[in-house]
Amino acid sequence: MTYGLGLLLEAGLVLIADSRTNAGVDNFSSYRKLHRISRAEDRALFAICSGSLSASQAALGLLLESGGEGETSPIDSAASMFAVARIVGAAVRAANREIDEALAPNRKAAACMLLGGRIGGRAPRLFQIYEEGNFIECKHDAPFLQIGETKYGRPILDRTIRPATPLPAAVKIALLSFDSAMRSNLAVARPLDLMVMPADPAEVVLERRIERNDPYFDALSQRWSDLLVEATSSVPDPSFMAPVPARSLSVVAGKAGS
Amino acid sequence: MTYGLGLLLEAGLVLIADSRTNAGVDNFSSYRKLHRISRAEDRALFAICSGSLSASQAALGLLLESGGEGETSPIDSAASMFAVARIVGAAVRAANREIDEALAPNRKAAACMLLGGRIGGRAPRLFQIYEEGNFIECKHDAPFLQIGETKYGRPILDRTIRPATPLPAAVKIALLSFDSAMRSNLAVARPLDLMVMPADPAEVVLERRIERNDPYFDALSQRWSDLLVEATSSVPDPSFMAPVPARSLSVVAGKAGS
Repeated sequence: MTYGLGLLLEAGLVLIADSRTNAGVDNFSSYRKLHRISRAEDRALFAICSGSLSASQAALGLLLESGGEGETSPIDSAASMFAVARIVGAAVRAANREIDEALAPNRKAAACMLLGGRIGGRAPRLFQIYEEGNFIECKHDAPFLQIGETKYGRPILDRTIRPATPLPAAVKIALLSFDSAMRSNLAVARPLDLMVMPADPAEVVLERRIERNDPYFDALSQRWSDLLVEATSSVPDPSFMAPVPARSLSVVAGKAGS
Repeated sequence: MTYGLGLLLEAGLVLIADSRTNAGVDNFSSYRKLHRISRAEDRALFAICSGSLSASQAALGLLLESGGEGETSPIDSAASMFAVARIVGAAVRAANREIDEALAPNRKAAACMLLGGRIGGRAPRLFQIYEEGNFIECKHDAPFLQIGETKYGRPILDRTIRPATPLPAAVKIALLSFDSAMRSNLAVARPLDLMVMPADPAEVVLERRIERNDPYFDALSQRWSDLLVEATSSVPDPSFMAPVPARSLSVVAGKAGS
């Protein structure tokens, strides 16, 4: 499993991925899933891969090495992020098709990606590339995209991420979203890889790895648990559960069916 | 989709189910999923159904009406909750098998249940009945069981539900768990049906329906959103995102791969 998250905010673009891969629960390992996919100086392009590791590595290989190791890729000269997304989509589709042909009929390679970045001084853009190679672009109405184990980490995003959220707060909330996913699914785990691209092209792109023993993350996780417990205490209990004499509790609002 | 939740605490048993059923997104309706499944006076038995509505209704029918409408069922005289779970499991298995035979090979009826209740003055027990009819019993190490759309509502349970949680707080947290599921999945929706069985057999069993316009639930949902936003603000931002001169931010802890 994987959890990959991209936030496209007024202040910039954030990408975070975990690094756990597994085949069953008795064969797991750590592989980087957030990759810088272009060395061209006029662009900063990043992808998060999910799905079968062999398929996502094949897709990256087709994308970056089909012209020979160390050679330039078509994405280094593509004129727009849309053009880059089409090239990445074609590589994902080709990798999945080749592997799916060899798999049993009920199995799928299912590599997919989040693609984010900018060309020149233009605004950052964010895309979700589906396993068939088609894609959607993130727009301000819904300022984030997720791949992999998306559900556990989603409630906090739905409630707190807005287009105007500043980057430090967005990174913090994104890490809380990963904390929720990691607590509930063993197949999502640290190290996490993080990329922050401010909207202002003059500012530096930050790349950082959050290790298994990162003290900030540990403190964040513990403090968040404490805050949730405090928050649940500060919400009033349901009035129908108030401690009143037992018999008066029988306010059966709906008769049980059979 | 469905979300069904059972909490087995030192203070008693809580069962909550939503009531949305749907076939696609253009054909949805409201059906009760929490049922009282015995009329025998010495026992209080409840089940939450998930999966194909036809299959779960068939399982309830086999369970309750195979001897004739209004007749007693074997669960009315079963000697233990374990014996009840075996009878319910057999009905679930039979209903799924019959329907699966008629379905296309890649489709499954997949009815499953949470079963909770007590016989006589004994302690309440809680079981999860799988679609094949086998089952597990809830134990104190993990004091809750979920069926259906389980993931969105799980992080808050993992962090705040403990065996010692009092019933009013448990009901409140369970409703917050439903709120998270309903915000992120249109196929989970109010009305919610709630059953609270205190551990003390002298106390009354509460059954209640929380309607679409329930003011407590609306206030709870809004207050929780506000609290989450406050809580995220009160956690310190990552130090590596602090506003410092741009160039000093390039603390690249892990080089990006290709």
